[in-house]
Amino acid sequence: MTNDTGLIRSHPRFEKAAEALRAGHDRFVEELIALTEIPAPPFKEEKRAAAYEEMFRALGLEEVERDGIGNVTGLRRGRGNGPIVVASSHLDTVFPEGTDVKVRREGTKLFAPGVGDDTRGLATLLAFIRALDAAGIETEQDILFVGDVGEEGKGDLRGIRYLFTENPYRERIASFFTFDGIETQDLVTAGVGSYRYKVAFKGPGGHSLGAFGTVNPAYALGAFLVGMSKIEVPGDPRSSYCASTFQGGTSVNAIPEEVWTEIDLRSESAEVLDRVDGEVKALIEEAVKGENARGDTSNGEITCELTRIGNRPAGTTPHNTTIVEASVAAIKAYGFEPEFSASSTDANIPMSLGVPAVKFGHGGAGGRAHTLEEWVDVEPELSLRGHCAGLLALVATAGFVEA
Amino acid sequence: MTNDTGLIRSHPRFEKAAEALRAGHDRFVEELIALTEIPAPPFKEEKRAAAYEEMFRALGLEEVERDGIGNVTGLRRGRGNGPIVVASSHLDTVFPEGTDVKVRREGTKLFAPGVGDDTRGLATLLAFIRALDAAGIETEQDILFVGDVGEEGKGDLRGIRYLFTENPYRERIASFFTFDGIETQDLVTAGVGSYRYKVAFKGPGGHSLGAFGTVNPAYALGAFLVGMSKIEVPGDPRSSYCASTFQGGTSVNAIPEEVWTEIDLRSESAEVLDRVDGEVKALIEEAVKGENARGDTSNGEITCELTRIGNRPAGTTPHNTTIVEASVAAIKAYGFEPEFSASSTDANIPMSLGVPAVKFGHGGAGGRAHTLEEWVDVEPELSLRGHCAGLLALVATAGFVEA
Repeated sequence: MTNDTGLIRSHPRFEKAAEALRAGHDRFVEELIALTEIPAPPFKEEKRAAAYEEMFRALGLEEVERDGIGNVTGLRRGRGNGPIVVASSHLDTVFPEGTDVKVRREGTKLFAPGVGDDTRGLATLLAFIRALDAAGIETEQDILFVGDVGEEGKGDLRGIRYLFTENPYRERIASFFTFDGIETQDLVTAGVGSYRYKVAFKGPGGHSLGAFGTVNPAYALGAFLVGMSKIEVPGDPRSSYCASTFQGGTSVNAIPEEVWTEIDLRSESAEVLDRVDGEVKALIEEAVKGENARGDTSNGEITCELTRIGNRPAGTTPHNTTIVEASVAAIKAYGFEPEFSASSTDANIPMSLGVPAVKFGHGGAGGRAHTLEEWVDVEPELSLRGHCAGLLALVATAGFVEA
Repeated sequence: MTNDTGLIRSHPRFEKAAEALRAGHDRFVEELIALTEIPAPPFKEEKRAAAYEEMFRALGLEEVERDGIGNVTGLRRGRGNGPIVVASSHLDTVFPEGTDVKVRREGTKLFAPGVGDDTRGLATLLAFIRALDAAGIETEQDILFVGDVGEEGKGDLRGIRYLFTENPYRERIASFFTFDGIETQDLVTAGVGSYRYKVAFKGPGGHSLGAFGTVNPAYALGAFLVGMSKIEVPGDPRSSYCASTFQGGTSVNAIPEEVWTEIDLRSESAEVLDRVDGEVKALIEEAVKGENARGDTSNGEITCELTRIGNRPAGTTPHNTTIVEASVAAIKAYGFEPEFSASSTDANIPMSLGVPAVKFGHGGAGGRAHTLEEWVDVEPELSLRGHCAGLLALVATAGFVEA
């Protein structure tokens, strides 16, 4: 058994696996398109999960099932029958029900919401399984392939959180890959923590003319947004904030009784995250006070109801772990220069629990994730270099059985 | 011919008309119930219009027809065959299709959505026509009776707008009554104008962390709202503005591609309304520029799409016009103390065009308009005093032929 990527890569069986990836590239593209065109809106991954489960079965994985929260899991047994390496990608997209997910192809480019994030990861896992089987590769540890639910947004990592807290495999997981994001050089070893809130400003409402002058929660929201746009955060540790979704009011001729926004605060640094969190809360208080001072409160005051809707733990994976060392070596082996980065992914959960974990790219090129213009490029050379690097990292982490 | 309400009221023919109103009160109540129970949702007045058209025909009005936009019109010829007085009420209610419009009667009270606003006006016009005919009253000017469409909400006064811009009668209308609202003392001589817009800020969107720094249309919205809350408007002429409804964004972890608000601007003064309109447009421009200066525009800039969703012109009717003088005298003649008020009604259209117009009550008591609990009281004494006042004002404005 070896974890040495150099030895593995030059082994005839791994070479055969690389050839299988190349031979199966068209099939990979077909499966990517097929999966992309099965909508998987937040909290509605069932249809895609059912299809993915069938694909796992068809590939001969063992103990294929959907766990208690909806993750699709399937085992490829290793020799050891003990510790497990997880190779996962997430089933869900950010796009709501009814979004047109038909793939448009232009040359080697595929355009569709979710085609990259993370459907390309799902199709990549299928390509890995096929290549491992075609090459007869045996690993020391079992590999648990997972298509997980709830990575995006309000999903709040619930699929992988469940995997590590409820799923019977949880005790055996020794390391964790999430294949997510395009670029092979981008290796995430730090989990950006995030706080998410629904910020609901409320007031007495009233007729737009008849009650003119009455406090309007929309103006408190406005002041909050302006304040938010001025919050300063460092680039390193990487940090961000976003006012994302909005709703409120009932009629154009009525002062709204409630307007709300959902916001997303992130940082690699728990300290920065808490500082931004404090600023946001101060801005809310100031916005409420300001509108109550500006308008007439005789029918009621502006208040704000702050509801936490997301809490993703921060965490890091030390660079001297097998998974990081194997990943770095595999990325270099295929001509990329590894860049360590921090992000908020399924890997946050194992990282926060001390289980070595990385987010590994699923290869190729792409862009505009989380927009209707999302695209990936499936041009074979770059794609296959990415796939080979990923498979090498996975096999090296699981331990390659040479005999 | 006289416009003198004192002379008219004491004339035997007008006394006969008042008796006819009293004798016909039960029929008025029956017709009010029948019309209320024909639903007339916004933009779906056809069924009620067809019934009303038949009622006009049965009463012997001339040239009964439905005009190009759906208004029911019928003429009661005067002696002059020239200028016209319009007596109108609106067919539409605010209630959507499927609302239960069955009338519940408790003593002299009738409960049903729309029973007051403005079905009671429609039934009142029928009572007027019958009383005029029973008494053989001749007027100098023709009276055009109108059941009009599109007074409420997004109907945007389209029925009366059409009457004054497209209908062949438009050139001949010398004065205009809308019988709308319950209270006889409430005489609307000023039309509150309103502009309504959907203000949609748009941007390139992106991942909340991955694209952090990208322009966010929410912050442009915020700046716009803060600016809007500082707009100053006079209390007299009565004016208002309101940011009312909100929507935008798709996911908490995505920079929104679009956020919008619907806003309502109103004033009794066309000048103030246009000034506020200009300030709003300047604020929008400033908010767009500000966010494009603040954030990264490499994936696209913030823009704003401004869509007019409502346009009700402001206007006033001078108090020294025949219609206002006759209305005030008629209201006083039946023991009420006239209160001049400003509102947004069908009368806005003629007022804005310089055609003398008022909103006159259709009598009785009532309340909870625009709610499912709407009610009117058809107790005869108060109802009939209101009807007599309305009929007197109408006849005096049209000119009573004494000979």
